[in-house]
Amino acid sequence: MSELRDRIIGHSLILFEKHGFHGVSVHEIVQASGTSKGGFYHHFQSKDELLYVIHDMFLTYVWREARAADDTHPSPVAKVQAIIRAFVHVFDLYQPHISVYYQESIYLKAPYAEKINQKRDEFKQLIFHIVEEGQKTGHFRRELPLEVTAMAILGMVNWMYKWYRKDGPYTIEQIADVYTDLVLHLLLPGREDRTYFDHLLKVPFFYE
Amino acid sequence: MSELRDRIIGHSLILFEKHGFHGVSVHEIVQASGTSKGGFYHHFQSKDELLYVIHDMFLTYVWREARAADDTHPSPVAKVQAIIRAFVHVFDLYQPHISVYYQESIYLKAPYAEKINQKRDEFKQLIFHIVEEGQKTGHFRRELPLEVTAMAILGMVNWMYKWYRKDGPYTIEQIADVYTDLVLHLLLPGREDRTYFDHLLKVPFFYE
Repeated sequence: MSELRDRIIGHSLILFEKHGFHGVSVHEIVQASGTSKGGFYHHFQSKDELLYVIHDMFLTYVWREARAADDTHPSPVAKVQAIIRAFVHVFDLYQPHISVYYQESIYLKAPYAEKINQKRDEFKQLIFHIVEEGQKTGHFRRELPLEVTAMAILGMVNWMYKWYRKDGPYTIEQIADVYTDLVLHLLLPGREDRTYFDHLLKVPFFYE
Repeated sequence: MSELRDRIIGHSLILFEKHGFHGVSVHEIVQASGTSKGGFYHHFQSKDELLYVIHDMFLTYVWREARAADDTHPSPVAKVQAIIRAFVHVFDLYQPHISVYYQESIYLKAPYAEKINQKRDEFKQLIFHIVEEGQKTGHFRRELPLEVTAMAILGMVNWMYKWYRKDGPYTIEQIADVYTDLVLHLLLPGREDRTYFDHLLKVPFFYE
């Protein structure tokens, strides 16, 4: 990663958010980034590739974190905790990328759209896989249909793009705590020997 | 509600979904609906008003159901159950309306956009109010921050527009059962005398 490449991405994010993908020319990106056309095309084949890179950055982050969580933790409970935490953090770490994604994803051309969709599907399948694994091991409630439950969890977190603000009343850490708690509450069985419920006590008592 | 008005709405939904709001003229709507320009303008001031009516239909449904649930049920648990159920059903009852909404809402002009946003905010505030009420009465877990929890619940359901299909493996009734269960599981305290947990047993055992 070169410093210029990062600078081009940073400035194009600001411009795309403001004027939309089609409202911004390579010339304007070049000017805002203080470089030349040569500098731009050294790092990106086209404006389309730049849009793809923006999409791919946050998706790769969450996908990699999810895979690491799946590889590292033996228990589905710990896997879910680690994944939800990373997934929530994405909305803080990559806020402008995600905002451009939701505005501009319809403009992603082949083969970029396919690559993004494939990685998104892999992430989704990993969530499905971990919920299913937890149901098989008895950590998670077996009566829940896998698809509906996994999509509900994905929706809870994905919807953050609509409301999360860096200057909001809760830090991203607090939101990650709450989301982890909510997801575990809906997945874990309400049995008497609830050793897994120890994980839930991490939520700070906001009302006290 | 006239029969022609419904027919215009039905045909315009099909056309908007296919070609987008700007890709469809009043002339094409008139032709598809088998009426005249006079017939169209008798029922709608403009294509903008038609787009507003489409948005308003499903929003009014869920908003009215939520208000009725709030008025009818004494317990916050029953209120949440009724609201989640109605909210989930909206994605089945008004699927084309919602699909047009997410594609075209940026084209809603003033004063229509303000009216829609106001009703959407009222619905959101009602959810906030009921979760808060349940926390005050001790039905729902007090340690959860109201805003984050309510937005997580709204996100879970709203995300259905991304994945719900009428011909999918689960009926809308089954999905409503599961969502109600998930939301109550995340709201209700895990205490010993869990009388409210009786409500949760309504989820069918999909895995048996």
